[in-house]
Amino acid sequence: MENFNFHSPTFFAFGKNKQKEVVKYIRQFGGTKVLLHYGSGSIKKSGLYDEITASLQEGSIPFCELGGVQANPKSGLVYTGIELCRKEGVDFILAVGGGSVIDSAKCIAAGVLYEGDFLDFFAGKYIEKALPIGTVLTIAAAGSEGSYNTVITNENTNVKKGATGEAIRPKFSILNPELTKTLPKYQIACGISDIMAHILERYFTNTPNVEITDRLCEAVLLNMINEGPKAFSNPADYDAQANIMWAGMVAHNNICGVGRKQDWSSHALAHELSARYGATHGAALAAVFPAWMRYNIKHDTARFVQFATRVWGLEINFTEPESTALEGIECYENFLKEIGMSLSIKDFGVVESDIPELAAKFKLGESKTIGSFVPLKTGDIEAIYKLAFK
Amino acid sequence: MENFNFHSPTFFAFGKNKQKEVVKYIRQFGGTKVLLHYGSGSIKKSGLYDEITASLQEGSIPFCELGGVQANPKSGLVYTGIELCRKEGVDFILAVGGGSVIDSAKCIAAGVLYEGDFLDFFAGKYIEKALPIGTVLTIAAAGSEGSYNTVITNENTNVKKGATGEAIRPKFSILNPELTKTLPKYQIACGISDIMAHILERYFTNTPNVEITDRLCEAVLLNMINEGPKAFSNPADYDAQANIMWAGMVAHNNICGVGRKQDWSSHALAHELSARYGATHGAALAAVFPAWMRYNIKHDTARFVQFATRVWGLEINFTEPESTALEGIECYENFLKEIGMSLSIKDFGVVESDIPELAAKFKLGESKTIGSFVPLKTGDIEAIYKLAFK
Repeated sequence: MENFNFHSPTFFAFGKNKQKEVVKYIRQFGGTKVLLHYGSGSIKKSGLYDEITASLQEGSIPFCELGGVQANPKSGLVYTGIELCRKEGVDFILAVGGGSVIDSAKCIAAGVLYEGDFLDFFAGKYIEKALPIGTVLTIAAAGSEGSYNTVITNENTNVKKGATGEAIRPKFSILNPELTKTLPKYQIACGISDIMAHILERYFTNTPNVEITDRLCEAVLLNMINEGPKAFSNPADYDAQANIMWAGMVAHNNICGVGRKQDWSSHALAHELSARYGATHGAALAAVFPAWMRYNIKHDTARFVQFATRVWGLEINFTEPESTALEGIECYENFLKEIGMSLSIKDFGVVESDIPELAAKFKLGESKTIGSFVPLKTGDIEAIYKLAFK
Repeated sequence: MENFNFHSPTFFAFGKNKQKEVVKYIRQFGGTKVLLHYGSGSIKKSGLYDEITASLQEGSIPFCELGGVQANPKSGLVYTGIELCRKEGVDFILAVGGGSVIDSAKCIAAGVLYEGDFLDFFAGKYIEKALPIGTVLTIAAAGSEGSYNTVITNENTNVKKGATGEAIRPKFSILNPELTKTLPKYQIACGISDIMAHILERYFTNTPNVEITDRLCEAVLLNMINEGPKAFSNPADYDAQANIMWAGMVAHNNICGVGRKQDWSSHALAHELSARYGATHGAALAAVFPAWMRYNIKHDTARFVQFATRVWGLEINFTEPESTALEGIECYENFLKEIGMSLSIKDFGVVESDIPELAAKFKLGESKTIGSFVPLKTGDIEAIYKLAFK
């Protein structure tokens, strides 16, 4: 096991009606003037917007608001948010929505306290300071409610990249699974794919003997395999949605990833598909991850056999363990198909001649690589995209 | 799933040599004058005492010290510690040791800022304020390094009880598995039993449909079954000790327990054995828990079958599932025996005529109960002790 630090100080309030406590937590974490940040308006349709704004008014907490966050959130709105916060003297950001809204809020929170261009953080600069953030989560997927990461798409370059910093980890997150019962099935499926991918990026490692995080990763995957289809077929199934919602946090606050090298190249490949074709993050991962697995299966067959047996309950073919390894990947592919995910990047609008350009975007040159399980060069990335082009 | 709040803000530094960072973390969490609290002197033999005091001196952090914490820590030393802290103007407590030392430190930390008798907290008063605490853990067991609980034995009444409060949760905990390689095998086994019991108290629940915490509980148990015997047979096995040490934290910071009713009656029964006979906590749990299981097996056979199949890998006897349930308990008993734990409370010095007195200590009268999976009355408690008297 490798040395690590682990810190997950976010306060989580989970369950029915928990959004009614929002004012209590804003106060607890020092908010006196709030930016209410949200997406394209689904919270207005659902009544959540009215509920939150009524709570803020009743609690005498002044607020301004900025809606309009799109999926794969864009840099433009972040600049608007930073300006608004400075003008209005905002000292707390409340993100009401999914991972895109929370990620956008994290960028604003960091940008307000930074003199330079917030995009510096996406060129590798660690985020040292940010306004405090609270969230009311409306979809289980990104895990941004408990993470210290954010991902943004630069509108000028069409590059989607991540930034990190303890300062942007939410102070509190309110998770009410009831808020997810009106989600379109496609969004639920994308969330399931995203949560599982967050685990898989941690699961496929070269670090030996990290049984505790192996088992925790497998636990979350088993939960998703059990509960995902229930939520997909009946979004009103509270317990299924609750199991998924909490799994989404557990999958990404790093409790399942400590002590081991992690990979994250599938996320990088998926980000390119989101930036260029607008592919929903979870959908992009559903197409990329099985291809990544197939491409890398020979690197550590034993690990893929472990995935096949412990996660998918397959019996080992003792004379040909590689066939079991492959069967595990097929189980994962079938699972994704059953919840309506496509395994082909064609469905995002990719044409074959785009693939070299997509791979070139990583600017790896001759010697640079991405990922750690199998460090990928430009040619490997092309090959994986090609495997996902079917 | 039930509504819950979850908050685990402790900063964990895990791995080789991490104790060398102790001054950095004391400073980070505001300590300027430290009480160094420790046990019976094993840290002096191992050289850890010298290492920590040298770090404090090099870091120019003034400190006073109080050693002598016994297993099943006692109220007397807590009073001494409170007085010492007040006299010396201590503003930070550093606990170097296992669960007993950390629990004692938590009591001192709370007591210093409380005008009344700190034992009020063990009569149900919530701990609102405490000095900040840091820990350097030397045994994986109690999980006190990440929990907001403490347990103390009142020397006057010989009653062992717990208290809780967010304020006593350690600000940081340093976990270096190397520090556990010199532990006696008996202590390692007691730690394994304790960690598994912390999970089992959460696992046996009447709350339906909490798949995520079911799976996480099972993950930790599977890890313990794999890694426990390795650490027991070879305490110098770093990875085994590391997997156990992190599992000890995961088992008790409540990430495995949210959203469900928990039981905790086995702990109460074990505490009586520690208070009266000095039984090591984990050893007491090893004798009590299987008896508790056997006594309650009919309450929810399906849950015991799940335990047998998912945790112990047993095949279900479909026509007689109860036999599978029983076999699961037997697997647990055999596991405990293999790491040298006794299943009989006789080995602590209990004689049969003590049993009614032990049960009477709970003062349940006619109608009161303890536990939630099966609420236990005085007669049930007697029956469980009798099952463990073999």
